[in-house]
Amino acid sequence: MDKKQNVSRAVIRRIPRYYRYVSMLRANGVPRISSRALAESMGLTASQIRQDFNCFGGFGQQGYGYNVEKLCEGLADILGIHRQRKAILVGVGNIGKALLKNFDFKASGFDLICAFDADKTVVGMDFGPANIRDVAELYDYVDQHQPEVAVLTVPHGIAPALARDLVGHGIRGLWNFTGEDLHLEGLGIPVENVHFSDSLMILGYAVDAGDPSATDE
Amino acid sequence: MDKKQNVSRAVIRRIPRYYRYVSMLRANGVPRISSRALAESMGLTASQIRQDFNCFGGFGQQGYGYNVEKLCEGLADILGIHRQRKAILVGVGNIGKALLKNFDFKASGFDLICAFDADKTVVGMDFGPANIRDVAELYDYVDQHQPEVAVLTVPHGIAPALARDLVGHGIRGLWNFTGEDLHLEGLGIPVENVHFSDSLMILGYAVDAGDPSATDE
Repeated sequence: MDKKQNVSRAVIRRIPRYYRYVSMLRANGVPRISSRALAESMGLTASQIRQDFNCFGGFGQQGYGYNVEKLCEGLADILGIHRQRKAILVGVGNIGKALLKNFDFKASGFDLICAFDADKTVVGMDFGPANIRDVAELYDYVDQHQPEVAVLTVPHGIAPALARDLVGHGIRGLWNFTGEDLHLEGLGIPVENVHFSDSLMILGYAVDAGDPSATDE
Repeated sequence: MDKKQNVSRAVIRRIPRYYRYVSMLRANGVPRISSRALAESMGLTASQIRQDFNCFGGFGQQGYGYNVEKLCEGLADILGIHRQRKAILVGVGNIGKALLKNFDFKASGFDLICAFDADKTVVGMDFGPANIRDVAELYDYVDQHQPEVAVLTVPHGIAPALARDLVGHGIRGLWNFTGEDLHLEGLGIPVENVHFSDSLMILGYAVDAGDPSATDE
């Protein structure tokens, strides 16, 4: 399977959802699935699924359905799950703690190697996979260990300056929970902003319409 | 502007993003914007934006661009932002606390009226907009105050049974942070699952590709 150039943003953003569904099928021991059955269970059309998969060379023989194991591995390859990129987390407040304790970074392709906070009462503690260090050590640590991605769970106000400094020290992607726009376009660095509000607004729409089909089950 | 039937899931899921962008334009005092300029800043095509808006009757005159104020209000109407539906939150752990303290429910069209937890050390406290009550009072409270939506931030394992009981007491939508599938399809209740992992996997893809355009800025 080739990682083709110029795959559209919309297609890429559907890949994790495919991966979630197909991983579930694999965990349930399902050996094969047709594009039609996959489409039905995901609220898409079979032709959209085939088109999406064709962007990456396709994953199966027409008429025979997809081999779930191979499809799952193919999607994992696209997403680089096995690369286990090094990541750090900055800001061990409520959302930072929730991620450290409950979020499975490995399952998404990341190895969370360290977390940082300014609060001396949490420095030195272990939360989930990571030891918490003093934020004063942040840039030395980044220079030495060269994580690829930083998770920003700092309070409002400091994210933009922090993001620029992290990028200056070689960070190549930011997972931003701060709710603040970072405006790093000029630096060419991917930023994935987590907008809880989008999800809640869609729920509101679906409740008003009495229509579960808009929501993401 | 009409709320048409049979608007596709994909269109509906883009509306909050439009609303975020256009709200930002309004806050910046921008009076008008063309579909082309809106498309460029959002990584979409002008024709897709026009098609999406036409699903709701359109919002502007061809050639003159959109009146930002009217467009913003039109999008807010579609999303029911002014309805301020009553919501409750169940589970005041790290993620629950983060939402109560930092998330602006009103801006997404919800009035968070109460939160619940089993832990006596947090019962009676105020976090953000909501007072925290004992979870033993949950169903009496729901019967009496009839919230439309419940936010599920409970630990792994109890979400499915809790969700069914809440729906039995009249809850019409669930915002699910538990990472557990709820399988409420048969009940016809919208469930919006928050999948942090999708966002992180897209970031991983974009970092590997050295391409910021897949991410959501």
